Amino acid sequence: MSWIHELGLRWPILQAPMAGAQGVELAIAVSEAGGLGALPSAMLDPEALDAALGDYRRRSARPLNVNAFSHVTPPVDAAAQARWQASLAPYYAEYGLTPPEPATGPGRRPFDAETCAVLEAHRPAVVSFHFGLPSPALLARVKAWGARVLSTATTVEEARWLEARGVDAIIAQGLEAGGHRGHFLSDDLSLQLGTLALLPQVAAAVEVPVVAAGGIAGPRSVAAALTLGASAVQVGTAWLRCPESTIRPLHREALASDAARHTALTNLYSGRPARGIVTRLMRELGPLSERAPAFPLAAAGLAPLRAAAEEAGSGDFSPLWAGQDTSGCRAVPAAEQLRWLAGDGGP
Amino acid sequence: MSWIHELGLRWPILQAPMAGAQGVELAIAVSEAGGLGALPSAMLDPEALDAALGDYRRRSARPLNVNAFSHVTPPVDAAAQARWQASLAPYYAEYGLTPPEPATGPGRRPFDAETCAVLEAHRPAVVSFHFGLPSPALLARVKAWGARVLSTATTVEEARWLEARGVDAIIAQGLEAGGHRGHFLSDDLSLQLGTLALLPQVAAAVEVPVVAAGGIAGPRSVAAALTLGASAVQVGTAWLRCPESTIRPLHREALASDAARHTALTNLYSGRPARGIVTRLMRELGPLSERAPAFPLAAAGLAPLRAAAEEAGSGDFSPLWAGQDTSGCRAVPAAEQLRWLAGDGGP
Repeated sequence: MSWIHELGLRWPILQAPMAGAQGVELAIAVSEAGGLGALPSAMLDPEALDAALGDYRRRSARPLNVNAFSHVTPPVDAAAQARWQASLAPYYAEYGLTPPEPATGPGRRPFDAETCAVLEAHRPAVVSFHFGLPSPALLARVKAWGARVLSTATTVEEARWLEARGVDAIIAQGLEAGGHRGHFLSDDLSLQLGTLALLPQVAAAVEVPVVAAGGIAGPRSVAAALTLGASAVQVGTAWLRCPESTIRPLHREALASDAARHTALTNLYSGRPARGIVTRLMRELGPLSERAPAFPLAAAGLAPLRAAAEEAGSGDFSPLWAGQDTSGCRAVPAAEQLRWLAGDGGP
Repeated sequence: MSWIHELGLRWPILQAPMAGAQGVELAIAVSEAGGLGALPSAMLDPEALDAALGDYRRRSARPLNVNAFSHVTPPVDAAAQARWQASLAPYYAEYGLTPPEPATGPGRRPFDAETCAVLEAHRPAVVSFHFGLPSPALLARVKAWGARVLSTATTVEEARWLEARGVDAIIAQGLEAGGHRGHFLSDDLSLQLGTLALLPQVAAAVEVPVVAAGGIAGPRSVAAALTLGASAVQVGTAWLRCPESTIRPLHREALASDAARHTALTNLYSGRPARGIVTRLMRELGPLSERAPAFPLAAAGLAPLRAAAEEAGSGDFSPLWAGQDTSGCRAVPAAEQLRWLAGDGGP
């Protein structure tokens, strides 16, 4: 019996925070139905985060997981930006666009004192980090209000590193997962393991509860992950077609199509490897390219292209995040999806 | 209840055929203990195969799975061989070796009429193929003596392709698996899925029984695979430290060491991607290289290097095949390992 079960969840199912793909609506729906909802903070400024947390608390008394990225924002490298814009120049021309200023476009904020102050005012029950952990001082502030802290490990070494720094549970993220890989000790992708191989090894290596992530896409994989030693599972992709997600219609359609069978890890959209459905951009530049600037600076150069293409009904330049099993992406309310994942036929 | 259960196995556990790493001893031990033993034929000439099958039958009345490769041997490409030898030249010099003749070294035979004739004389209960299927005429000969036919799928498309051609069961091989990937419809490695994502999708796509492979390394993963919809599991890596395997001491030692935590897909050892522990050769040439000749012709150039390095106690040039979870590689008799995998504490 781990502390996760003491949160009063009906099922040990965590909704994966998906920055850019969801806000409070999905979190509330999952939490109210008996899972653990999550609010991603990385693409919200402090005011928007404060408003979202207030909205959540007015509408749900259930525990919430607030997620933050713990990367270090790199300085803008003018030469790298110029190389990136040169790689994208034919596409700007195709859409009649002027290359954007390097500093524009959607960013991802790392967890900082300002974000922490917003959370201190709301005291969410769970705070989860991706890409390692923030500074010890910031981590101590999070723990000070009693929050349970989660972070992602993609290797046994990362799991041990996180446990030594006091996390309360480890999310073991297998290679099947959609969106950004959480690795932080090495960027050698050959170290990344499938969930079936990673999960039992992490569970054997640490004392804290382990949450399985990556390829958990239906009732069978939920049950299998618990069999493999997980205390809970974290599900992302399977919520994306629920009405509570905020993804665009073309992303919804891609998830329901045969195109979703072919995903790849790509650094083109943000600068860090993340899994999404293979797009024209990924095919033409190669999904992993040294030309993409460091995370999160690759996104700015793509923003106008993405907007123009989407306006024309094309997802050629959109990040169509998805894991390796989209067969569970049902267009049903999140509460119904949760019951299905839990193996409860329900009413 | 699938035909696999009608073979009279005590547990639905198949021993993965591992050419170059085992012979009849492992197959007999597993079959006699209640699993399905396998004999790989790809590195045996017809006389040796006939002798091995005779040996098996004298010592066991249990069903046997004989495995064959169904690749097409490419013509020797002198330019490709010359490029490969140039890549290896610094290593030949390091060991004071003369570059070998292109045609020498260990080969892999595809399944052909001669091999089929040997099998016809012994009529094994199960015949499994890797890299697709042989010609329809050869496949018909195999089915004519009543053999059940298995083949490996690494994607849903390959599973459907195999089912349409009459296989009796499909081995769904996830990306975690050690040794050679079985893909045959596309060599785009981004199409390869983790077992947790592949298995339920294959099980949903075909009517024939599905055997899970890749990362099945202990009792928990055996149970999880059955939960995911598999009729049986196929286990490879977990037998490699059993006394019945034929791998060299340095391979055994590597499997028991921290080095086994880092595997990668490499085409350097044979010309096709296969998963093994990262070696000096893989680090220095890159694990996937366009300089490696087509399968199976890369092996010849490495053979003298491997032999010289092993003689000096080094595995720098050896294929140290292993899957992504070596935590179950116990140095115990195969019969004991089978009972452990099955979750039977035993006496």
